[in-house]
Amino acid sequence: MTLYPLFVFMLLTMSFLISLIERKIKRFYFFKFKVTGYIENIEKTQKRIKMSETSVQSLKNIAIKIRISSVETTAAAKSGHPTTCSSCAETLSVLFFRIMRYKACSPREPCNDRFVMSKGHAAPALYAVWAEIGLIPTEELLNLRKIDSDLEGHPTPRLSFVDVGTGSLGQGLAVASGMAYIGKYIEEASYRVYCLLGDGECAEGSIWESINFASFYKLDNLCAIIDVNRLGQAGPTMFGHDVEKYQKRLDAFGFHTIVINGHEVEELISAFESAEKIKDKPTAIIAKTIKGKDFPGIENEDNWHGKPLGDKTEAVLQHLRTLLPPDINTFDFTIKQPLSKVKAVNINNIFLSKLPDYTKGDKVATRNAYGTGLLKLAETNPRVIAFDGDMRNSTFSEYLLKAKPKNFVECFIAEQNMIGAATGACTRNRCVAFASTFAAFLTRAFDQIRMAAISQSNINICGSHCGISIGPDGPSQMGLEDLALFRAIPTCTVFYPSDAVAAERAVELAANTKGITYIRTTRSATPVIYDNNQIFKIGKANILLESRADKVLVIAACITLVETLEAAKLLTASGIYIRVMDPFTIKPIDKNGIIKHAKEVNGRILVVEDHYAEGGIGEAVLSAVAEENDITVKIAAIKEVPRSGDPTALLDFYGIDSVSIVGYVQDILRGRC
Amino acid sequence: MTLYPLFVFMLLTMSFLISLIERKIKRFYFFKFKVTGYIENIEKTQKRIKMSETSVQSLKNIAIKIRISSVETTAAAKSGHPTTCSSCAETLSVLFFRIMRYKACSPREPCNDRFVMSKGHAAPALYAVWAEIGLIPTEELLNLRKIDSDLEGHPTPRLSFVDVGTGSLGQGLAVASGMAYIGKYIEEASYRVYCLLGDGECAEGSIWESINFASFYKLDNLCAIIDVNRLGQAGPTMFGHDVEKYQKRLDAFGFHTIVINGHEVEELISAFESAEKIKDKPTAIIAKTIKGKDFPGIENEDNWHGKPLGDKTEAVLQHLRTLLPPDINTFDFTIKQPLSKVKAVNINNIFLSKLPDYTKGDKVATRNAYGTGLLKLAETNPRVIAFDGDMRNSTFSEYLLKAKPKNFVECFIAEQNMIGAATGACTRNRCVAFASTFAAFLTRAFDQIRMAAISQSNINICGSHCGISIGPDGPSQMGLEDLALFRAIPTCTVFYPSDAVAAERAVELAANTKGITYIRTTRSATPVIYDNNQIFKIGKANILLESRADKVLVIAACITLVETLEAAKLLTASGIYIRVMDPFTIKPIDKNGIIKHAKEVNGRILVVEDHYAEGGIGEAVLSAVAEENDITVKIAAIKEVPRSGDPTALLDFYGIDSVSIVGYVQDILRGRC
Repeated sequence: MTLYPLFVFMLLTMSFLISLIERKIKRFYFFKFKVTGYIENIEKTQKRIKMSETSVQSLKNIAIKIRISSVETTAAAKSGHPTTCSSCAETLSVLFFRIMRYKACSPREPCNDRFVMSKGHAAPALYAVWAEIGLIPTEELLNLRKIDSDLEGHPTPRLSFVDVGTGSLGQGLAVASGMAYIGKYIEEASYRVYCLLGDGECAEGSIWESINFASFYKLDNLCAIIDVNRLGQAGPTMFGHDVEKYQKRLDAFGFHTIVINGHEVEELISAFESAEKIKDKPTAIIAKTIKGKDFPGIENEDNWHGKPLGDKTEAVLQHLRTLLPPDINTFDFTIKQPLSKVKAVNINNIFLSKLPDYTKGDKVATRNAYGTGLLKLAETNPRVIAFDGDMRNSTFSEYLLKAKPKNFVECFIAEQNMIGAATGACTRNRCVAFASTFAAFLTRAFDQIRMAAISQSNINICGSHCGISIGPDGPSQMGLEDLALFRAIPTCTVFYPSDAVAAERAVELAANTKGITYIRTTRSATPVIYDNNQIFKIGKANILLESRADKVLVIAACITLVETLEAAKLLTASGIYIRVMDPFTIKPIDKNGIIKHAKEVNGRILVVEDHYAEGGIGEAVLSAVAEENDITVKIAAIKEVPRSGDPTALLDFYGIDSVSIVGYVQDILRGRC
Repeated sequence: MTLYPLFVFMLLTMSFLISLIERKIKRFYFFKFKVTGYIENIEKTQKRIKMSETSVQSLKNIAIKIRISSVETTAAAKSGHPTTCSSCAETLSVLFFRIMRYKACSPREPCNDRFVMSKGHAAPALYAVWAEIGLIPTEELLNLRKIDSDLEGHPTPRLSFVDVGTGSLGQGLAVASGMAYIGKYIEEASYRVYCLLGDGECAEGSIWESINFASFYKLDNLCAIIDVNRLGQAGPTMFGHDVEKYQKRLDAFGFHTIVINGHEVEELISAFESAEKIKDKPTAIIAKTIKGKDFPGIENEDNWHGKPLGDKTEAVLQHLRTLLPPDINTFDFTIKQPLSKVKAVNINNIFLSKLPDYTKGDKVATRNAYGTGLLKLAETNPRVIAFDGDMRNSTFSEYLLKAKPKNFVECFIAEQNMIGAATGACTRNRCVAFASTFAAFLTRAFDQIRMAAISQSNINICGSHCGISIGPDGPSQMGLEDLALFRAIPTCTVFYPSDAVAAERAVELAANTKGITYIRTTRSATPVIYDNNQIFKIGKANILLESRADKVLVIAACITLVETLEAAKLLTASGIYIRVMDPFTIKPIDKNGIIKHAKEVNGRILVVEDHYAEGGIGEAVLSAVAEENDITVKIAAIKEVPRSGDPTALLDFYGIDSVSIVGYVQDILRGRC
């Protein structure tokens, strides 16, 4: 009997300790992109209370709670977009608590419906949703936009419930379309994809590329919601509240369209339910909304974009609270579960079905070997998918189309959507996506590539027809800034294979490399220089010519490497020896190798590249030796807008051919450089 | 009497010599972008023969001649797109010889109608037109795509009759829209703008941005022609010959649309004439055509994109010649003259209306000074025009809107069209255009910027909100690759002003600098550090701290310069002196200044920049000292995708704040770097 109080005390203490540990675990998983226990508890609680759908009144309540949270968190952060959150509060409430099917305890479960918030500046509303679900501790919300919180100003996949970073407008629908394409045609799964867009971002052409793509491929598992709140950042959008303009355009582009009042929960439910029934067409729900809805004195007013409510905060919060029923703490919700599981997929350790099979000295374009490598990968893993922009017969991604049409996605001439869709395809590790076009045209998708890095994407990109060596088509078709572009992407590995063997291995390595990869291929056929069993490593250069008598280290890749090897012959004839390095990857570049070999030739480096001087191999080499004394680097690169011409004539004219290289080496040795 | 034969002989000799000189002159001007005498002769001839309109039969004949020329020239070049030329032959014939009003002897005359060939790969057809007019000697046509000819694979403004380079698809309509906007609203001129698009390129979102822009601004002086030839490069386009799809979409976007058979000259004439009468709407003529029209065995067949006709060349030429009447050499044409002249415009020597007026130490954001500088320029020259993408209240271009609304063009959230339209506005030196948005979002328009360089454009671009110092909005809004982007543009001058005085002067210098200019501005208010009368020069750095005791040269700009000056104070306290350099322009960078000052501090350089390590100030500095021995460079820059946070916390976290700088300097002096 005397032990009874002690027993109770121990029980209470243990339960307190367990709750503390649970919080710690939750916090840990929260930052590591998954939450388990906590949400399961939430779900059990729900099951106990109610198994039916979340009621209309509860959805209305949640929308108000989203508004309250958005006002509070942006006030705490002293920045953010509460009025933008307010216009989409009912949409989010209905989507997450009535329409979407997902395992809330595991936001990245492959069978879950997907949600992409294209209007990323409404992040606080999304965070409020996941706090309501139970994934984010309410107190964490007030750390919005702080350096030690993952609740960033715009959503990023540092959070488990975010698949891709958004915030550069006009990109979400491409990603969502890619997810929907994979869901419908590759996974043949039941999950649906929802994408919330702002009205302002519909001026971005990229949106119309994606609308076109989704309609062309009949992505009926895709539902876009356009939050027409009338106001952009600087002023009204192009069409204000003229929802018919949006409807007419989307109709013309082949979408099923539904116009609703975006603050009426019943209308939202009905629209989403009707969208689920539409076959062979994606749906767009055009939701007429009010920016700053339910914020007295602010709603529908200009000049309230991207700012917290300042001295109006308290009044607005008070008003919002009056909109909630007094028994708010006891309201309930249910989250629908996925209809079916999806197949387990393994996209690790992907390898070529056959070894490279070339004869040294034969001429094979690296772009051709790219296509061969791609097909060989798809032969060992069915989830290797190629995207191309009407260039498949130039990039040679057509090898995959011809052998395995299901693994090929023609994106037509729309590079932004191509990169976005491929990024979407990569999410949740369901596919290994390769996207290809001319290197020059990848500049079109720089913003999408930049955002893919923020999205922690593993997308692989191939740019063909690099440099002036493409010849007569002229400067518009020459990729001369692609290395500068991809080197400036923090998560990117940049391959620049110098022959067909290297190209196939680059494709294989790319498929297995985390982060973005870029493979630069060349139009002209160039000689095979490596053995078929040559081993290539990221960040490891290969030395092609070496002797104790070497006077200069020449670093060059593919077309300029061919010229360098030719120059070496000419130089040897006059008794000058050079060491020749093929870097293989430009990022990371083989820093140690460069320094070692440079020192062995008295610190003289010559870089020869078919790229503009800025941001290319030369500057990568300079960065590698930046902190070394006694190393000088001469860079031979393209320094002006080039012209059309025969490839050989152009290499000569712009000073990156073998004769020019001989001249540079002689100049370096004469101390003229 | 005996002198008579001698007189005749002299007359013949002189006439021969004159014709030789004339040819030389013509050739000279041809390469220098203008032709005079030759065309005047052509015009006189025409006047003598016929003053009425070019007949329908002549237009048909010219179309056949365009086809013949396209086949011949691409056969000679052994590359090119004859089938693409063929589908638009009648369109070009009708446009240039019946519809457009222009002084053929002076293709860049400001009063002329404009023509933009968005489908740049049909260049040989355009060259055939100008050969027919008389501007290009027929024999020159066979030099197509050769290095010593300006008849490049895709049109560039090396040719007098080309305003902008095309060849990267989907860009022409933006340029044409910019021209039309200026024509209608700034020049209030009678000239019209025609833009020929391919059907394949209509998949590019940029096209829809421009359609949206043209419709919104009621550009009834703009006429787009879509050459619906059904076939792209790799295969059929999305919609083949379904012209109604194009019509429905363009209708929905607010264009006046006309569907025609693009090979029927009468239908073309009637469509263009009706387009001229439409008010408040741009027109799109949707021309159903056949790729390879009149090439037997080739027309409407797949796999004939981008290749000469090979062994079918002679048979096709023979067939085409049968389509011409036997008296072809005597047919005639007339070119309509412009309806009215346009006002003379002077956009040289533009200057600020008032000197910068700041107090040293006061905090002013450089983006704010950008707006001030822009307005001051417009006060002295009415042709200074600002373009912005719904960011005017962040970039501060709104100062111009508020003071001079006519000089401001709101482009909404569509950066590709914004850059294209501003490029169009700059053509023929009618305007000084400045285009601004967040630096991060300029990545969206990299391809347009690249093409603007090929177009020899003088567009000025401003990117605000550079770097992590923007803080809580997070990585999607941080411009961290803009220097890499603009440095890789060959014609670009890159300004990175460090205070408000420098920013105003950068704006002034940009307006007067040929080529593209880029101005990088900062979100945060930073202290004014220069006197109001400070003189700034392109390629000339300023030294802010200097002493004989200096141990390290620190190069930094704006936000990191502020941190460097703070670090200098901390270091001085411990007896370490640093030299501080503000580069002002990153391209060209002050190579001589850097080398001189580096040598004075024993070759130790530290660069601190709010940009990714690749392609930024650090690599610009490395390139400047690449060929110098005994100079080492340590670069402190951003090396990963950053996160949201308070600006001060981020500068610290990513190692570019004053405390970090102190550490780097100490490490360098300890020989640890």
